Amino acid sequence: MITIALPKGALLSDSIQLFQKIGLDFSAFLDPKNRQLQISDPTQTATALLVRATDVPVYVEYGQAQLGIVGYDLLLEKKPVVANLVDLKFGSCRMSVAVPKTSPYQRPVDLPPHGKVASKFVNCAKEYFRSLDLPVEIIPLYGSVELGPITGMSEAIVDLVSTGKTLRENGLIEIDTLFESTSRLIAHPLSYRLNLDNLNNWVEKVRTSVINQP
Amino acid sequence: MITIALPKGALLSDSIQLFQKIGLDFSAFLDPKNRQLQISDPTQTATALLVRATDVPVYVEYGQAQLGIVGYDLLLEKKPVVANLVDLKFGSCRMSVAVPKTSPYQRPVDLPPHGKVASKFVNCAKEYFRSLDLPVEIIPLYGSVELGPITGMSEAIVDLVSTGKTLRENGLIEIDTLFESTSRLIAHPLSYRLNLDNLNNWVEKVRTSVINQP
Repeated sequence: MITIALPKGALLSDSIQLFQKIGLDFSAFLDPKNRQLQISDPTQTATALLVRATDVPVYVEYGQAQLGIVGYDLLLEKKPVVANLVDLKFGSCRMSVAVPKTSPYQRPVDLPPHGKVASKFVNCAKEYFRSLDLPVEIIPLYGSVELGPITGMSEAIVDLVSTGKTLRENGLIEIDTLFESTSRLIAHPLSYRLNLDNLNNWVEKVRTSVINQP
Repeated sequence: MITIALPKGALLSDSIQLFQKIGLDFSAFLDPKNRQLQISDPTQTATALLVRATDVPVYVEYGQAQLGIVGYDLLLEKKPVVANLVDLKFGSCRMSVAVPKTSPYQRPVDLPPHGKVASKFVNCAKEYFRSLDLPVEIIPLYGSVELGPITGMSEAIVDLVSTGKTLRENGLIEIDTLFESTSRLIAHPLSYRLNLDNLNNWVEKVRTSVINQP
């Protein structure tokens, strides 16, 4: 029996739809009364774990789940040792640099050397500014990154943007995009290579389902 | 005007009560309709920032807030460069090692070498097992750490325990305590040393209020 790690939050309902299309029903997780974090599909073919999005690659890396769904942004940030197999197309967003509308810095390279940039995605931000040869300091924040520029703690932020509503509400504008992100099907590398529990068959089903979707 | 960083979540209401006792009213943050993350008290003496608990020491370390309230556990885990000034007595909890009730490992030193321990508090857990001379692997999880032993990914967890309800619900028992934790008043070291905005006066007021409480 294979185990699949599903992410709580924004990607959950699309993830469950995807597996429904290939015959695995984990919709019990969408019941607001559900408190279980581990369920089997009704045909007893697979088990699903409901975990925080950040934890999905951990469960897959340690082989506790053979498959998982995770945003490409997390793969770039955490660099887990997992196989990135299928672009699932949903959960589109982008990693952007944003500054206050009134900022004198309207291009990333305008930012002052040793300026400060607040981000949850410390590694992505560091890599980006290193590639620009700009020695800024990255301040790790875990909630409300927008508060960085509002309080004056940082000149800019690097954050995930989907609709752009949060940025607009906080008077921030995007001045560059680091990369675009979508959800990915990931697998435990060894299980995939050895085709344990006929894993490749499930991966192919997901791949075909994504290609054939309208 | 001084700025105070207040933690969202479990410590917020006690934190607001504490500052009310010394004449600073930030109770607007407790209004469920409130969406502001930055407010001044009605006498315009101080500003408060409402931030995620993990971010409080970041705002204080960078001097964006001169004072903050944070759990001792976070100070030990993140080691921010802040002055730890007053034990506020509320928010009591303990950092514990827990295993499944049915585990063959009923003492930390019984854990197998190269066994796995899941924790949000990676640094605290590493330091603890290093002090026991036990080479376990710490698996970083950000949500539902209890799933570690339930799924078989780890033999034990290191996590904050307050009532013990979550552990009991998941069939886990504590086998050791790393340390006890309470909330602390922290300050930006330089502002405190230079007594900017008469900061020491506010710290003394907090200290006196804590000593005199019933």
